[in-house]
Amino acid sequence: MEFSAQQIASFLGGTIEGNPDVKVSNFSKIEEGKPGTLSFLANPKYEHHIYNTEASIVLVNNDFTPTEPVKATLVKVANAYAGLAMLLNMVEQTKKPKAGINSTAFIATTATIGEGCYIGNFAYIGENVKLGNNCQVYPHAYVGDNVTIGDNCILYPHITVYRDCIIGNNCILHAGCVIGADGFGFAPEGESYKKIPQLGNVIIEDNVEIGANTTIDRAVMDSTIIRKGVKLDNLVQIAHNVEVGDNTVMASQVGIAGSVKIGKHCMFGGQVGLAGHIHIADNVVFGAQAGVISDIKEATTVLGAPAINAKAFMRSSAIFSRLPDMYRTMGQLQREIEQLKKEINK
Amino acid sequence: MEFSAQQIASFLGGTIEGNPDVKVSNFSKIEEGKPGTLSFLANPKYEHHIYNTEASIVLVNNDFTPTEPVKATLVKVANAYAGLAMLLNMVEQTKKPKAGINSTAFIATTATIGEGCYIGNFAYIGENVKLGNNCQVYPHAYVGDNVTIGDNCILYPHITVYRDCIIGNNCILHAGCVIGADGFGFAPEGESYKKIPQLGNVIIEDNVEIGANTTIDRAVMDSTIIRKGVKLDNLVQIAHNVEVGDNTVMASQVGIAGSVKIGKHCMFGGQVGLAGHIHIADNVVFGAQAGVISDIKEATTVLGAPAINAKAFMRSSAIFSRLPDMYRTMGQLQREIEQLKKEINK
Amino acid sequence: MEFSAQQIASFLGGTIEGNPDVKVSNFSKIEEGKPGTLSFLANPKYEHHIYNTEASIVLVNNDFTPTEPVKATLVKVANAYAGLAMLLNMVEQTKKPKAGINSTAFIATTATIGEGCYIGNFAYIGENVKLGNNCQVYPHAYVGDNVTIGDNCILYPHITVYRDCIIGNNCILHAGCVIGADGFGFAPEGESYKKIPQLGNVIIEDNVEIGANTTIDRAVMDSTIIRKGVKLDNLVQIAHNVEVGDNTVMASQVGIAGSVKIGKHCMFGGQVGLAGHIHIADNVVFGAQAGVISDIKEATTVLGAPAINAKAFMRSSAIFSRLPDMYRTMGQLQREIEQLKKEINK
Repeated sequence: MEFSAQQIASFLGGTIEGNPDVKVSNFSKIEEGKPGTLSFLANPKYEHHIYNTEASIVLVNNDFTPTEPVKATLVKVANAYAGLAMLLNMVEQTKKPKAGINSTAFIATTATIGEGCYIGNFAYIGENVKLGNNCQVYPHAYVGDNVTIGDNCILYPHITVYRDCIIGNNCILHAGCVIGADGFGFAPEGESYKKIPQLGNVIIEDNVEIGANTTIDRAVMDSTIIRKGVKLDNLVQIAHNVEVGDNTVMASQVGIAGSVKIGKHCMFGGQVGLAGHIHIADNVVFGAQAGVISDIKEATTVLGAPAINAKAFMRSSAIFSRLPDMYRTMGQLQREIEQLKKEINK
Repeated sequence: MEFSAQQIASFLGGTIEGNPDVKVSNFSKIEEGKPGTLSFLANPKYEHHIYNTEASIVLVNNDFTPTEPVKATLVKVANAYAGLAMLLNMVEQTKKPKAGINSTAFIATTATIGEGCYIGNFAYIGENVKLGNNCQVYPHAYVGDNVTIGDNCILYPHITVYRDCIIGNNCILHAGCVIGADGFGFAPEGESYKKIPQLGNVIIEDNVEIGANTTIDRAVMDSTIIRKGVKLDNLVQIAHNVEVGDNTVMASQVGIAGSVKIGKHCMFGGQVGLAGHIHIADNVVFGAQAGVISDIKEATTVLGAPAINAKAFMRSSAIFSRLPDMYRTMGQLQREIEQLKKEINK
Repeated sequence: MEFSAQQIASFLGGTIEGNPDVKVSNFSKIEEGKPGTLSFLANPKYEHHIYNTEASIVLVNNDFTPTEPVKATLVKVANAYAGLAMLLNMVEQTKKPKAGINSTAFIATTATIGEGCYIGNFAYIGENVKLGNNCQVYPHAYVGDNVTIGDNCILYPHITVYRDCIIGNNCILHAGCVIGADGFGFAPEGESYKKIPQLGNVIIEDNVEIGANTTIDRAVMDSTIIRKGVKLDNLVQIAHNVEVGDNTVMASQVGIAGSVKIGKHCMFGGQVGLAGHIHIADNVVFGAQAGVISDIKEATTVLGAPAINAKAFMRSSAIFSRLPDMYRTMGQLQREIEQLKKEINK
């Protein structure tokens, strides 16, 4: 690829400050920008780099106004990060996808495979599987019996989809994720535990992305549901009978216990944990490592374990580090009051 | 399947309140019950749903007494959850297991395979492996050299059992779990670290279930041991030289550091962490996200990091959110005492 | 193997206290030592076991002086743990490694394979891969297109290396780890999110060990970098664009968010979390479960979430458990002051 600032501005509907003819053939981080590359500035924390970067073009937000001279040509757009995404997409689409069904793959005779699919070496497609059009199934992927998968899905190596699960269109399953393993259900039986068979499944709607080594358990009787547009990072755990609402995003290592119902458009920081059987409203934001043990009934930002309002948590945390001082002060106050009592009673 | 309330009550040894002839052919959650389905009520939190459910039969505990009219037929048993488990088991046993040894599987000539085993496509069974009777080894499972596995085990896709490990009877290894990877042992050597070879193994006793993508490391010299009846959820980490006692259960994302010894019948909430080299008594309960740094010598329930008695933790947490108020109040008390001193010294 | 105390002392450059002719043929933990085995004592916590152990030889530090009679022969060395590592290494090197390229492995015709490599059943080596000499590639390993791997690497079963990644010499990738999955990058687009293609890669330098089911995401544009000598335990998450400095070690379940830059020789306890875009100095120590949200500019030990100085955290934690008492005391002080005021104003 090689593009001029002019071409990029046209493609993104942006405006140019600087030389419209300068050309780039690759991307770079702003702090490590090299001539001939395009960089971007979206996070104000990185602004100081724009005054030193060697990148030839920097994509910025319309509202960015430099406070010092900038050597690079600026392309200003409504949303620099979204603009970058469009450019990266354009480059990605020039890559030729894998094609064809490899002879070492196993495909059950009762399975239905759509048009334009790639099925790689040693992939396993079980009985009665329905795989849509233009799917990419990488080597070592395992798709169990009776699974249905929509169009344009990407199944990376070593993914496992247990029997009976349903996956929509345009989904991406990263390497090693496990969809539909048994939920963690046991009934006490004397000193030991008796397994409760998990006869339900997992339903994943359209446009969902599942991170590497993430696990989503099948429901005990009906379905664990991941609604459309959900994005899960790596090593996330979704227990049985959970429902995750539209366009909710979870960072890595989040754990959601059984039968939790989560609203739309929530955002989870890393390592958050939710206790079982609670309900979460739409648009709730969870700070990293929050631990939630009860319903959240309206849009809010929470932090801490047990989680409380994020600002309240940060205020209390600031005091937490002064607790030894507070403790000493309180002892002193006690002694002073005793002294005052004595003086008054004199 | 189709069963009447009468048949279910007979099978479970329960009693009927309502129409003994009503029939069901599937299961449902009580809050989404549909006619022709059986639901259950074990958690009192869900009781209000029983007065609205459309489920035809609801399994309840003997001590449940409705406070409003119930449309469904009730089947009362000693333990509704255990009763449900029995019904789900009955249904599951009607499913035909996979059978036969697939020609694409690799089985070392020195391996011994029991009777009635299923070994799926692309499975790998190493040298000197002993696999018991009636095991289900799914596609892409990897069983390393010299591994011994008992009867009636299920090895789901993409499991890895490193060389020399021993697994008992009736164990279930969910997809992607890794048994016997090297423990995390390094000796400092100047600025860098020298690997300490991990020459031990992992021993898993009977009736153990290991969740998806859970990892259990091999011991440095002898054995990491998972005792009988242990149930581990997904994404759990068990480090080298750990011993987990009989019938202990761990929810997802728990991490146990090296050489920890855990008693029988403990219960771990999600994301709990235990520091290395500590001993835990029998019947200890760990609330979610607890962080434990020292021995626990008797049955108790702990919470927080560093973990303390759970009730004490909840009481302190309630005060934690009022710390800014406390801090202000303390400042005010200081000023008032200063004022009082002045007044007294006047 | 069978070695005398004399042979071991010579091999390790140590000195003997006891019978130099006693022989051992295996290793044991000191608390479970058996005759004919060698044990070691490095952690003072275990010292009391040395007075009861049945092990024939115990490796100890030069500065260890028994306070009671010891039955075992002692071999004293500068560093008992490092000495043990040398002995374990010696034993491990007597094991014959796997060899040869299995006929069921897939190796692209454009791939280059070094000398002395083992490539196991069902392994997948993609287009243009460069694999160095003496590598061990276990069954079911997946190496994507254009990946470069150095000499003497071990790739255990079910590892995934996505396209374009680079791995140095002497690296170990444990089962199920995923190198180079897409970073978690999305731009909001109305109610939903648009994927930002992740076109960069992962670079892993020499002498790195990656734990089972650990995930390291590819960079959005350039490289996620793991510097030489880094050791990552199981189930660790390294997000896109992170850089981890030389010889830094991370225990299990640590999560590092995007664009974090970590110095050399840091040590992470289990389940630590770092927020995105922060910088960490060299030689920083993170206690288990610490949550870090801002830069750390010098070598220090931190604990808690948000993390503070470890000693300060432990002092505050000690007070935390007394918060309910403090709260009551403060209420009492308030009442006493009110009483004093009344008495003074009388």
